[in-house]
Amino acid sequence: MLSKSQISFIKSLHQKKYRKEHGIFIIEGFKSLLEIIPSHYNLDSIYYVAEYKSLMPTLPSNIKLFEVNNVELEKISTLQTPQGILALVKQPKATPLDPDVLKNCFSIVLDGVQDPGNLGTIIRTADWFGFKNIICSLNTADVYNPKTIQATMGSLPRVNVFYEDLSLVLPKVQVPIYGALLEGKSIYKTDFGTEGLLILGNEGQGISAAVINFIQQPVTIPRIGKAESLNVAISAGIFCAEISRNII
Amino acid sequence: MLSKSQISFIKSLHQKKYRKEHGIFIIEGFKSLLEIIPSHYNLDSIYYVAEYKSLMPTLPSNIKLFEVNNVELEKISTLQTPQGILALVKQPKATPLDPDVLKNCFSIVLDGVQDPGNLGTIIRTADWFGFKNIICSLNTADVYNPKTIQATMGSLPRVNVFYEDLSLVLPKVQVPIYGALLEGKSIYKTDFGTEGLLILGNEGQGISAAVINFIQQPVTIPRIGKAESLNVAISAGIFCAEISRNII
Repeated sequence: MLSKSQISFIKSLHQKKYRKEHGIFIIEGFKSLLEIIPSHYNLDSIYYVAEYKSLMPTLPSNIKLFEVNNVELEKISTLQTPQGILALVKQPKATPLDPDVLKNCFSIVLDGVQDPGNLGTIIRTADWFGFKNIICSLNTADVYNPKTIQATMGSLPRVNVFYEDLSLVLPKVQVPIYGALLEGKSIYKTDFGTEGLLILGNEGQGISAAVINFIQQPVTIPRIGKAESLNVAISAGIFCAEISRNII
Repeated sequence: MLSKSQISFIKSLHQKKYRKEHGIFIIEGFKSLLEIIPSHYNLDSIYYVAEYKSLMPTLPSNIKLFEVNNVELEKISTLQTPQGILALVKQPKATPLDPDVLKNCFSIVLDGVQDPGNLGTIIRTADWFGFKNIICSLNTADVYNPKTIQATMGSLPRVNVFYEDLSLVLPKVQVPIYGALLEGKSIYKTDFGTEGLLILGNEGQGISAAVINFIQQPVTIPRIGKAESLNVAISAGIFCAEISRNII
């Protein structure tokens, strides 16, 4: 049985302010747990309903385990339909981005992406295509938002997500900088080569004025029909597939 | 001021059962309204806060207009942050799919896509690439779900969405049938030609056993990294971009 203070502590982690203060975030579902255990993320505690007791893998002794009932799980879960298991994970210490890690590969830069679901889907897509790094502007959605984590579908441990002031980082990079804009060179006619950054902008406003100047090659997904824009995660997916064409 | 029965009627339309019973669905936001007005969809009524009064375009006299306050709008809205304007739209009579409309173009087939946000994003993406038709299995999410409508971002009037028993429709089509599977010919090596169907499956289970037999060419987005799968809307976007390569 969970104490009132345990419940209120876990519920506080639904909010970014308290996730940041305590350096802890929530993951939910058995599959997410199995992806986190062998990764560089450290678990703090696990809350599970009885059905999961026999399935629990061997864990280091410092990880606290709590069997809970469905009513308790509903109280602490961030989901409308809790998945029977929830864990608290320690946020790794944020390391500043070393521009050298961006060489010989492609990385995604997100400038003000607001929707945590979009961020999570972009992380999952990056993981599919083997992109190791995502650099987020400071006003991009929180990678530890439960909706982000859910949308990553377990890919979080395999993609490094940095939060940086883009106007300080971009001048230091030594790879080509592509930017997804409505007017640019067609993706079908662009040879992306084997290294670079691809900048994607905010859902409504696109790439900010401060960042747009760093773009060396504007690129665009040609529009044949009439939609005003593409969803940013869809754009990310199409660019990742196009960039990967030469790698396969 | 809205009556209690008006409020409860509009709130009932948040549910599929009542949308179907009354043949009416909800759209929200001024931009969505402006996309619906010139389309083949017929408006029933509009509910707007005072700020929108002067912006309201000229409308046929049979459309009922109601100025509402923010409290009333919050009651009838499907959004956490209502956008100042909400309209009820009549569902057009469902016409059965004529297999001839599938010739000389590409169409998307969705087999059991569950998430209305995914369906809406696929409609928006189809509209970007000029795909005119989406054929949904009967167990696919409802196109008139408010979350679907929201995710289409105004593209709904430009894409025809059919609901059909796929095992009856697929034997009648006279264009190549591609299916998105984990094992198939690489999209990078597939010449999609200028007409066909692309089948995408359910978020968790993929394409159903009943439908898989109709696939003439399994196609796949090669995985370079480690994610277990791609989000279905992301897959749709990548396939649409790849299919459109020859059209541009």
